Amino acid sequence: MTAYFDNSATTKPCKEAVEAATKAMLEYWANPSSLHEAGCVASSELRKARKKVCRLLGVSEDNFFFTSSGTAANNTAIFGAFEKMKRQGNRIVTTAIEHPSVSEPIKKLEASGVEVIRLMPDKNGKIDEKELFDSINEKTIFVSMMAVNNEVGSILPVNSIRSIIKAKNSPAIIHSDCVQALSKIPVTPKTIDADIITVSGHKIHALKGVGGIYLKNTNIIKPYILGGGQEKNIHSGTEATPAIFSFGAAAEKCMDIKKNQDYVKSLKEKFLNGIRDLPNIEINSPDDAIPYIANISIIGLPSQPAVNFMSSKGISISAGSACKTGHRSSVLTAMGLSPETIDSAVRISFSRYNTTQEVDLLIEAVKEASLKYGKKYK
Amino acid sequence: MTAYFDNSATTKPCKEAVEAATKAMLEYWANPSSLHEAGCVASSELRKARKKVCRLLGVSEDNFFFTSSGTAANNTAIFGAFEKMKRQGNRIVTTAIEHPSVSEPIKKLEASGVEVIRLMPDKNGKIDEKELFDSINEKTIFVSMMAVNNEVGSILPVNSIRSIIKAKNSPAIIHSDCVQALSKIPVTPKTIDADIITVSGHKIHALKGVGGIYLKNTNIIKPYILGGGQEKNIHSGTEATPAIFSFGAAAEKCMDIKKNQDYVKSLKEKFLNGIRDLPNIEINSPDDAIPYIANISIIGLPSQPAVNFMSSKGISISAGSACKTGHRSSVLTAMGLSPETIDSAVRISFSRYNTTQEVDLLIEAVKEASLKYGKKYK
Repeated sequence: MTAYFDNSATTKPCKEAVEAATKAMLEYWANPSSLHEAGCVASSELRKARKKVCRLLGVSEDNFFFTSSGTAANNTAIFGAFEKMKRQGNRIVTTAIEHPSVSEPIKKLEASGVEVIRLMPDKNGKIDEKELFDSINEKTIFVSMMAVNNEVGSILPVNSIRSIIKAKNSPAIIHSDCVQALSKIPVTPKTIDADIITVSGHKIHALKGVGGIYLKNTNIIKPYILGGGQEKNIHSGTEATPAIFSFGAAAEKCMDIKKNQDYVKSLKEKFLNGIRDLPNIEINSPDDAIPYIANISIIGLPSQPAVNFMSSKGISISAGSACKTGHRSSVLTAMGLSPETIDSAVRISFSRYNTTQEVDLLIEAVKEASLKYGKKYK
Repeated sequence: MTAYFDNSATTKPCKEAVEAATKAMLEYWANPSSLHEAGCVASSELRKARKKVCRLLGVSEDNFFFTSSGTAANNTAIFGAFEKMKRQGNRIVTTAIEHPSVSEPIKKLEASGVEVIRLMPDKNGKIDEKELFDSINEKTIFVSMMAVNNEVGSILPVNSIRSIIKAKNSPAIIHSDCVQALSKIPVTPKTIDADIITVSGHKIHALKGVGGIYLKNTNIIKPYILGGGQEKNIHSGTEATPAIFSFGAAAEKCMDIKKNQDYVKSLKEKFLNGIRDLPNIEINSPDDAIPYIANISIIGLPSQPAVNFMSSKGISISAGSACKTGHRSSVLTAMGLSPETIDSAVRISFSRYNTTQEVDLLIEAVKEASLKYGKKYK
């Protein structure tokens, strides 16, 4: 028996996503920009996929654009909005726990002279609203805050930003990286009050190679990837139809967010109840984190050996995020956790396809690891 | 019977590419950056795919990076090299017949103050080497010239650039967009003397959603898409493994460039011999164009109705390139062709999977169109 608990790194494409991608390879493989019959069919399938993702996001098809990844979406959001806004101010407000596809573009802007305020999380991975209020001034042109943190699952106060920028007379565009939030909590302009929302397909059981960007107004960014003008010029490049069609199919399959959430919550509770009282265990995710992520430390067993131990049992988990291989987690460091806790932290990330049997396997493995390798710390 | 002659817009994924992508969806779907067993397997498959594409390109795996498209590769090449070179000069030399994913980034740099020289083609779509020589000066930091034009198939004098920049004491980086050249003519650093070569998967029977960039030295560009540092930080974003693996499989299947070229040449000759003497036909591609592309005009029948007429016969061809839907071809305009010729131009683009029967169908359709709709012009 194997068990995959690294769903925040990537998910297994669901049956429907695989079918949609297969159709894109075998039947609807023409270029959607081609004007012959085969191209028109591909274009019509592209429209259907867009409609499905837009339904999940609760947005109009005129305001949503496919990109080649969540990373490309975040680069487009940040550099694109900055190009548009740079004459109106010089401050960007963000957090210290963003994904590198947000933090790296902002670092580049900082190197070019932009003032960047990075809000620090508390020990639960949360951002203080008072600090958020104080950080925004009338020169603030861009606020970027993820909806859900990818390493600990904490929920960030994106919805407080709008009233603050109004109170501070700031022209800021609000961007929220919702890659880890999509399908796990409701991600719509009503629930996430942002001007730009970015998402990714492969975190919701679609193929790797597709992301998306919602723009409240299409003219709030300048395009970043330039070329043939696909996606109404927001993201050029021949549309990656297999991945895009799979995104549509996967989106259609996760419309019932509450039901999936309840199920995954039951898995996470079972897991936490099974390990909470073991020796040498610390739970780094806050109690009100999304149910899909549990960050824990087996004190005394460093992250990578922990991943290897689990792997030897057929269990896939992660040492921090998959994107920062080999580095000490900047998120946990920002949260001010102790070095012992950080160095032994692992992320368990669930999906609706996990089973209770898999959770039993995981509990047993954590138990064995904590007893065998844990330091007498508690 | 249907016949697809729009292979320069996109190609049908070959059997091997579909199989590789299917394996990526069903078996090797983990994140290649994940450190557990499943991630390591995905990473090993990624290495194999890279090896296969590198073998086709005749380059070391250390110098080749996957991107999400040919467009992303060209944006990375141009903006990335400019960032690196901008202190050494202010002139970019290119041609007037580049793909929009090259011409648009360069237009953006021009708007920011860079001097851009665009070499005009002659009526055969060729670039004059004397003009090329005169255009490069010691302030030239970047020369971008496609290897093969995407609309008429003319071959450009990329290999003359190196000696000119040396003679002119220019520090220029040479970039060649080889999207239309890969697998059709030999594309290796020995045959295309460029510092940066960009390619795309879906033009060689791989999936849409993957491109690539060869860098003679990895430090000649700064990264353009920033994030988790994938592809040695040249192109961040979770690797689109289904498309990437299909690129490897497709590359492996087109190693015998000469054999494929000979076969496609026989198809093109058959086609041109079948239509050459028809009334109202003009052939816009030069005699020594690559065999994969034939641009012709059925004088009197505008491009879009011509595409529709062919489509009604089950034949897919293109009105110019798929990327510039609805615009009069800037390539044919730059070539100085007459408005009648430009407005009725269509592109027939072959692949090694086309058959002589399909060419017969095409000849019959062009014959019917030229007799029914052609103007008595000749």
